Amino acid sequence: METFADSLDTPSVVVDLDLVRANIRRFQAYADANGFKVRPHIKTHKLPLIADMQIAAGAIGITCQKVSEAEAMVAGSSAITDVLITYNIVGAEKLARLAALARKVRLSVVADSADVVDGLSRTFAGEASPLRVLVECDTGANRCGVASPEDAAALARRIAVAPGLAFGGLMTYPPAGGEAAVQDFMSKAKALIEAEGLTVPVITSGGTPTMMHAAEAPVVTEYRPGTYVYNDRSLVMRGACGWDDCALTVLATVVSVPAANRAIIDAGSKALTSDLLGLTGYGHVLGRDDLAIDQLSEEHGRLVSTGPIGLKVGDRLRIVPNHACVVTNMVDEVYLIEAGQPAPRKVPVAARGRIR
Amino acid sequence: METFADSLDTPSVVVDLDLVRANIRRFQAYADANGFKVRPHIKTHKLPLIADMQIAAGAIGITCQKVSEAEAMVAGSSAITDVLITYNIVGAEKLARLAALARKVRLSVVADSADVVDGLSRTFAGEASPLRVLVECDTGANRCGVASPEDAAALARRIAVAPGLAFGGLMTYPPAGGEAAVQDFMSKAKALIEAEGLTVPVITSGGTPTMMHAAEAPVVTEYRPGTYVYNDRSLVMRGACGWDDCALTVLATVVSVPAANRAIIDAGSKALTSDLLGLTGYGHVLGRDDLAIDQLSEEHGRLVSTGPIGLKVGDRLRIVPNHACVVTNMVDEVYLIEAGQPAPRKVPVAARGRIR
Repeated sequence: METFADSLDTPSVVVDLDLVRANIRRFQAYADANGFKVRPHIKTHKLPLIADMQIAAGAIGITCQKVSEAEAMVAGSSAITDVLITYNIVGAEKLARLAALARKVRLSVVADSADVVDGLSRTFAGEASPLRVLVECDTGANRCGVASPEDAAALARRIAVAPGLAFGGLMTYPPAGGEAAVQDFMSKAKALIEAEGLTVPVITSGGTPTMMHAAEAPVVTEYRPGTYVYNDRSLVMRGACGWDDCALTVLATVVSVPAANRAIIDAGSKALTSDLLGLTGYGHVLGRDDLAIDQLSEEHGRLVSTGPIGLKVGDRLRIVPNHACVVTNMVDEVYLIEAGQPAPRKVPVAARGRIR
Repeated sequence: METFADSLDTPSVVVDLDLVRANIRRFQAYADANGFKVRPHIKTHKLPLIADMQIAAGAIGITCQKVSEAEAMVAGSSAITDVLITYNIVGAEKLARLAALARKVRLSVVADSADVVDGLSRTFAGEASPLRVLVECDTGANRCGVASPEDAAALARRIAVAPGLAFGGLMTYPPAGGEAAVQDFMSKAKALIEAEGLTVPVITSGGTPTMMHAAEAPVVTEYRPGTYVYNDRSLVMRGACGWDDCALTVLATVVSVPAANRAIIDAGSKALTSDLLGLTGYGHVLGRDDLAIDQLSEEHGRLVSTGPIGLKVGDRLRIVPNHACVVTNMVDEVYLIEAGQPAPRKVPVAARGRIR
């Protein structure tokens, strides 16, 4: 897959569709074998065409984080008919757009407080179909979510009786390796909710790092991996995949070799981002395990080596970023490559920058 | 300036033009008093209309980092007639675009190696007017740049005799507080170059953190501040300005208060970015010195407090980000406010995402 390198200006974000397909297939097969559904989070690729590939492989729909992301994805693909927005939707403008979106696709959202539930209910009370609302549960990530199974049951009850809403189940974004905590929390919440005569249609969890352990929380009916479709340095360093599984790379050019053990590339934080995810350094140069990207400015990436760096101005490098999802968000377009295609195909990143 | 808050969906990036004007005036007055020119770096705002304000206040032109940034700025403003691109331009596609741009404005670039000079010369040998090329000097930042005054003189000589090029002077991006190093390096390089019969038309330095000490390197004829136009948390923490001087803020909404000392806002790394610049935490909540933004996901910002957090779902907060320049790059538009204007004015960020 080196034939593309000469034709692209740099820095460019390149996505290997053959690796994407293999990554999608691997997790879908695991989910099928273990009897749960897959609802990929599109934050990683933000591309309707890759959502289509995920759905064609067996995904039941997609996950988005913001209303504007969902709008862009739905506008870009007729295959996307079922969307879960895993976010508390707050504010008149977003609620109005949510209602409009709910008329187009099977839509679900989450809530972790009465305030959020009540805002959704006020908006959807006048709609023809109820909005599915799942209770977000904090199973240890300490971000959003109700703190206990009892709180989850209380909020489920509130949703179930709220005009315009339907109780849609339970959702969590767990800490990596939190399968036991998810199983414990969700089992208890499910039992409490069912004891009140409600059904729990969906229990959905997520996260790529330990997704191949998802079956260790068998109460979960649906899983929302995101990064798995591309993989990245953080996942390689956690042992979740290898460099050969990384579908997204940043193509960069060496623009300066100002010292024997230092080189500068034209990809800085505006391409690779400052996300560290607990790592040291800002990415991995494929084929050059001896190099570290030890510093980024907005347009400069600094490579250092312990011995002579062996690079010259004009050399091109492929870099696996620390975090693939955030790189996708930096660029207006990515370049798709696949076996049998003579040239990279440029596609716009449809849901890039959709922060609302 | 609180009237805008109700009309904007969140997260939104808001720029106070009155503060921008004051920030521009303050540094221009310092430069005028000390006899050097100002050539602001547009990476901070990426907006032709603010470049116009800088030029109207006395700036001699603008600085850009990439050819595509310069193209966007020149296309957006007839006042921009003099552009310095402080980057080694490498590769056929960029060189062709550089030549086209040089036909429209007075253009200068930098180089720190013979490879870069030779590439520029091959492209510009056939052009009607020579391209000004400055030698980039490493005065301690350890990024790009020739390592010694002797190397600077040798490269100046090469530029001076290269077909299609004209020697334009010396450029550095120093480490913060590097005025003494700049004075030393540049004085020596200037003397060496002048001893060979060449003139050094420009000696340009940059960086906002210690810009009010720029006069301590009197050999410098031109300064390139960027962040000064907005300021940010990193500059407040370094003592370069106060919160009241910060013209760019991110307006965010509280979407969850899941624990007594924790709240979640709808601005994550896709708005505030992961840039730390040596700080702890990801921004400053105006009016709430007791809060820390201790963790970002892409769409969630986590606020923590030592005591009860005193926030509820729907509350709106204004956040000064760690690094203003990178926030500008995350959004397709910013909202301008100023005294006497009844509503925020939305403007596209013309040079956003221009990484090539």
